[in-house]
Amino acid sequence: MTYLYTMENAVYPVKILHELAYSVFKKIGCPDDHARLATDVLLSADLRGIDSHGLARLSGYVRLWEAKRINATPDINVVHESPGTAVVDGDSGLGLVVAPKAMEIAIEKARAVGTGWVSVRNSNHFGIAGYHSMMALQHDMIGWAMTNASPLVAPTFSVERLLGTNPISVAIPADKEPPFVLDMATTTAANGKLEILQRKSKEAPLGWIQTKDGKPSTNPHELKDGGALIPLGSDYEHGSHKGYGLGAMVDILSAVLSGANYGPWVPPFVAFLQPPADPVGSGIGHFVGAMRIDAFRPVHEFKQHMDNWIKRFRSAKTTEGHDHVLIHGDPEREMKEKRTKEGVPLNPKVVDDLKELAARLNLKNPL
Amino acid sequence: MTYLYTMENAVYPVKILHELAYSVFKKIGCPDDHARLATDVLLSADLRGIDSHGLARLSGYVRLWEAKRINATPDINVVHESPGTAVVDGDSGLGLVVAPKAMEIAIEKARAVGTGWVSVRNSNHFGIAGYHSMMALQHDMIGWAMTNASPLVAPTFSVERLLGTNPISVAIPADKEPPFVLDMATTTAANGKLEILQRKSKEAPLGWIQTKDGKPSTNPHELKDGGALIPLGSDYEHGSHKGYGLGAMVDILSAVLSGANYGPWVPPFVAFLQPPADPVGSGIGHFVGAMRIDAFRPVHEFKQHMDNWIKRFRSAKTTEGHDHVLIHGDPEREMKEKRTKEGVPLNPKVVDDLKELAARLNLKNPL
Repeated sequence: MTYLYTMENAVYPVKILHELAYSVFKKIGCPDDHARLATDVLLSADLRGIDSHGLARLSGYVRLWEAKRINATPDINVVHESPGTAVVDGDSGLGLVVAPKAMEIAIEKARAVGTGWVSVRNSNHFGIAGYHSMMALQHDMIGWAMTNASPLVAPTFSVERLLGTNPISVAIPADKEPPFVLDMATTTAANGKLEILQRKSKEAPLGWIQTKDGKPSTNPHELKDGGALIPLGSDYEHGSHKGYGLGAMVDILSAVLSGANYGPWVPPFVAFLQPPADPVGSGIGHFVGAMRIDAFRPVHEFKQHMDNWIKRFRSAKTTEGHDHVLIHGDPEREMKEKRTKEGVPLNPKVVDDLKELAARLNLKNPL
Repeated sequence: MTYLYTMENAVYPVKILHELAYSVFKKIGCPDDHARLATDVLLSADLRGIDSHGLARLSGYVRLWEAKRINATPDINVVHESPGTAVVDGDSGLGLVVAPKAMEIAIEKARAVGTGWVSVRNSNHFGIAGYHSMMALQHDMIGWAMTNASPLVAPTFSVERLLGTNPISVAIPADKEPPFVLDMATTTAANGKLEILQRKSKEAPLGWIQTKDGKPSTNPHELKDGGALIPLGSDYEHGSHKGYGLGAMVDILSAVLSGANYGPWVPPFVAFLQPPADPVGSGIGHFVGAMRIDAFRPVHEFKQHMDNWIKRFRSAKTTEGHDHVLIHGDPEREMKEKRTKEGVPLNPKVVDDLKELAARLNLKNPL
């Protein structure tokens, strides 16, 4: 969660940001429905406070399109399926568009046989995992979303960067309580947190990053010098092999199962770095799923127990200095309510980047 | 992973230990096929080096049977199902028996519609999660196994123990390489690791446990004084909310979805502690699943890429003092090969406990 409410950030109404993103996606040739969907997914990150995955990424997507690594008019196809599963080829489309289409297929499959699981190849960065998993909620289903990503993470005992921050999101509906929404990188800290420290010229806690020789580091710029992010757990003694194992599982389900690139072969998300010359698959991979609650238990029973679960945990006795126990999804939902009303604060560097992008694409600058 | 090869431990041939466990399960009234299965699951923990979940637990199961909290002749039933899902009621049976039966159902469902997922209520401790997930491998499927457990873990910012060590296991087949087998507690360290430190009178690293007031502790006996295990991540700054989120997900899939007890209502695994007086479900819960590889991609293609994945990661450049990068499942498989040949070392306290158990049940003592 990357909260950037600081004095230096100007705040913009959601409508203006929405129009900007939509006009950019239209300008690069996305069909109207794709442009609307991509905008919705992108803005959901800014609204939920995960600023690293929102408008801050827009110019990067455009640069990948300019480099012909993103296809604005993809033919998204099912290439293999069973009643409860599918593999989708994203045709180099925006992950922002490909992943929701895959999730729709998973939801259809779940409607038919109880659960649906779709592994996706030939895609690109899909924004926040939580957008896709949460699509299941309105259907009274549990939603799953994972993706692999550019290799920035060193497995336990490795100095090489072999995995992405490979997030896992699971969204579970409740009744009167808001849903439980887990959305986590499988690293100790996501890259967005390093970016905040970089902007503030602050050091990172030990356990987040290592040098190119695998030594502990507190330098938030370490990745530029060949350093790596560390899997959840921070070191072997504190279970980093578990975070590594989860990231590995995400990589395998997203890419080995679909025929995407995996591990160190995942293409970088930035246009100025070339993809590996010896790909082992197509594009990057995602893995999404939907589980129909009533394929297990009557929905009302399940939801009442979810409410009970959430209330019991939220009201547990806390450690000093905290007034409640965190329920996953609460901070992002509260942020979304706040920003929907008050607008989205954008870092000055992101504003400059968006202005430059608008100028380059001959779009009117709304900022 | 709890390796106990020390000078003090006598080593016993697998056959003798197998006979002992089988005779105990028969003696408490398990049908022959259940006794064989329970023995196989239990011994797999000792063979794979996860000593905390093997014979060390046998007398505890018997005490729960004596307290009428384990039913030796359960009628294990599907109570709700769809083509790809089921809820199984374990009828208070041994989890060692209930979980493999549930996994068989998941495998059948996967054969029919691509994947199969079974949530289980009214069960008991199921041994090592890896046994159940690995059942899928011989069918060219990916196997999943999770379970909730007695509350010993405090969520981030909680002083109350609300979750178990709630493990996640995912087993993924390869071709010439051995399978990838993740089997992890969602805590920084599993309880078995504390038990080793207790026996050796050593301190625990900071980040594993907290006092009853939520303060950091290095005392491996802290749980006896109301302390708690800490979720994977160790503290909020290092992502303990992620470990907590994973443990929560396991709890919800295993118990809220099936109708078992969840969170602080999960009955304790020891007979001298009474279950909560206000249960919210039946027994403890598991969640198992199977995904047919060829419901996504031809099996030989998948397995060749898994071999490539495993070889690339295993041969990565390592940090100082390590000669290879860990592949999940390797240490346990190597331990199984060693112990199958050389026998299983048992801690003297476990040997005494087993001798006492054999005497109490009027069984010949083979140790």
